[in-house]
Amino acid sequence: SIATFDKEYVGFATLPNQVHRKTVKKGFTFTLMVAGETGLGKSTLINSLFLTDLYRDRKVPNAEERIGQTVDIIKHTIGIEEKGIKLRLSIIDTPGFGDAVNNTHVEDYIDQQFEQYFRDESGLNRKNIQDNRVHCLLYFISPFGHGLRPIDVECMKALHEKVNIIPLLAKADSLTQAEVYSKKLKMRDEIKQFGINIYQFPECDSDEDEDFKRQEQILKDSIPFAVIGSNIQVDSKGRKFRGRSYPWGVVEVENPIHSDFLMLRNMLVRTHMQDLKDVTREIHYENYRANRSATDFLLLSFQLRKMQEVLERIQEQMQQSQTGTC
Amino acid sequence: SIATFDKEYVGFATLPNQVHRKTVKKGFTFTLMVAGETGLGKSTLINSLFLTDLYRDRKVPNAEERIGQTVDIIKHTIGIEEKGIKLRLSIIDTPGFGDAVNNTHVEDYIDQQFEQYFRDESGLNRKNIQDNRVHCLLYFISPFGHGLRPIDVECMKALHEKVNIIPLLAKADSLTQAEVYSKKLKMRDEIKQFGINIYQFPECDSDEDEDFKRQEQILKDSIPFAVIGSNIQVDSKGRKFRGRSYPWGVVEVENPIHSDFLMLRNMLVRTHMQDLKDVTREIHYENYRANRSATDFLLLSFQLRKMQEVLERIQEQMQQSQTGTC
Repeated sequence: SIATFDKEYVGFATLPNQVHRKTVKKGFTFTLMVAGETGLGKSTLINSLFLTDLYRDRKVPNAEERIGQTVDIIKHTIGIEEKGIKLRLSIIDTPGFGDAVNNTHVEDYIDQQFEQYFRDESGLNRKNIQDNRVHCLLYFISPFGHGLRPIDVECMKALHEKVNIIPLLAKADSLTQAEVYSKKLKMRDEIKQFGINIYQFPECDSDEDEDFKRQEQILKDSIPFAVIGSNIQVDSKGRKFRGRSYPWGVVEVENPIHSDFLMLRNMLVRTHMQDLKDVTREIHYENYRANRSATDFLLLSFQLRKMQEVLERIQEQMQQSQTGTC
Repeated sequence: SIATFDKEYVGFATLPNQVHRKTVKKGFTFTLMVAGETGLGKSTLINSLFLTDLYRDRKVPNAEERIGQTVDIIKHTIGIEEKGIKLRLSIIDTPGFGDAVNNTHVEDYIDQQFEQYFRDESGLNRKNIQDNRVHCLLYFISPFGHGLRPIDVECMKALHEKVNIIPLLAKADSLTQAEVYSKKLKMRDEIKQFGINIYQFPECDSDEDEDFKRQEQILKDSIPFAVIGSNIQVDSKGRKFRGRSYPWGVVEVENPIHSDFLMLRNMLVRTHMQDLKDVTREIHYENYRANRSATDFLLLSFQLRKMQEVLERIQEQMQQSQTGTC
């Protein structure tokens, strides 16, 4: 039975505020992974997204260094604050992932974070668990390919059960609007055809207003987001903005007519960050736990079988030695 | 490093709103246990607190039925809604607890809820776990005793490591203000002296304002809350309110000069409900988990020792039978 009180007011409507105060006090964490072949502007986009310079100290390896380079995973963490809200943002860079090298280490990395969380969660001091699970993977696709390359399919399929993949059409300023449109269509088809499970935007509630529903549909139809990044402030016609200056015109990173950059940032940060964390926790991590339990069970069965064999051998020996005495 | 952006705005300041929307959608649950000897107005107070009639169908057992009555635990659950915020409130009644009968079943009940939660949490389908853990115990103390009775000390000590205890001075309309004051003082002393760990209000942040800090101190100094309940609307001097009408005057339940009822409700519902849940989860439940692990470890050690004994016996037998053949 649901009872509503019109006149008298108990006060539990303040519950969200009580939760609010606690979450704000604790602060938020978010871990974003970026992947895709070298040179697609991954670092620049991250800097543009979070208005920060995460890669200040980066040394770009020269061609010689890059050959035979072991593909390392690099983690940058910064604390940023906005209107009193603290965010501990970690970016996991996967140089060379998507360059057709041996890629299992990225899979292993994601699994290791799940395993660490699983151990912490099963342990006795759970109050200050650090959540290092990867909440989202921005997968950069080259604008020059004819749709997805086989390596893209392989990379995304290797990770799609472990992390929320959001595919991006990188360096979109090299494509006309018509080219962007047809490439997006082709890639969405291929994603479906190859059975790649990218991040699904949550279904709208039926009681949401029409405008909200329309926005969500536009979001779904924009996959893969066509993005342009820039670390440079352009000065044009009295305005200052992040952009790229060409002889034929100036590209504005945050102009929705020029690219999906703003849509990506709004989605990633303002509207769906919590959902990305929830899906990670409720779907990907729970999958990991279930698989792990299955493995544990197999191991246990195996050990039990071994023990039984040993016992049977002992029994046989005993019977033989007893037969010997008869 | 903490970077603050004044001009440009990324948008993660909306994170609390994203969490807010999800928690509101999911709704809240709270489980409150009431205990204390029969006749102290437990049901009436609960009805007054939540402005509902939780006990509409209750049959009060007569004296004959009450004698030799096994002490049962009764759970009432209602869904209430206020300003769009849904609360699933469960009240656990423990008739007879504090009446000097065998009380271990209340302890067992709390442990069973922890155990159920532990099993659910360790299982594979964790998405829809029902949290039935007891978040708070309102312990009713008779206004007629000289401080705590031995049974009160015993009951509270049996439960104080498992649940947040808030002691109440029941039916306070039978005491003068001076009597209330001295009884509270005595009971606080006794609670300290007997080492009873009642619910501790969280420490104020140093950056809270002075008014807030003063309110929190008044709260701490009011333990045990002196309460008066009433299911009856009194009509007096043109006003309508929950109260009790005596020949010498009218007691108003929600008048802060008459009792601590309003203070209790504000604390329980408007300011500390989430903290009561957090302490249950972070302290009491974690204690249970730790004890359980210790028990598991002891059981496992015991079984291993047993197995070793069996193996040793087998070895002895083998050696004896081998000696026999020599």
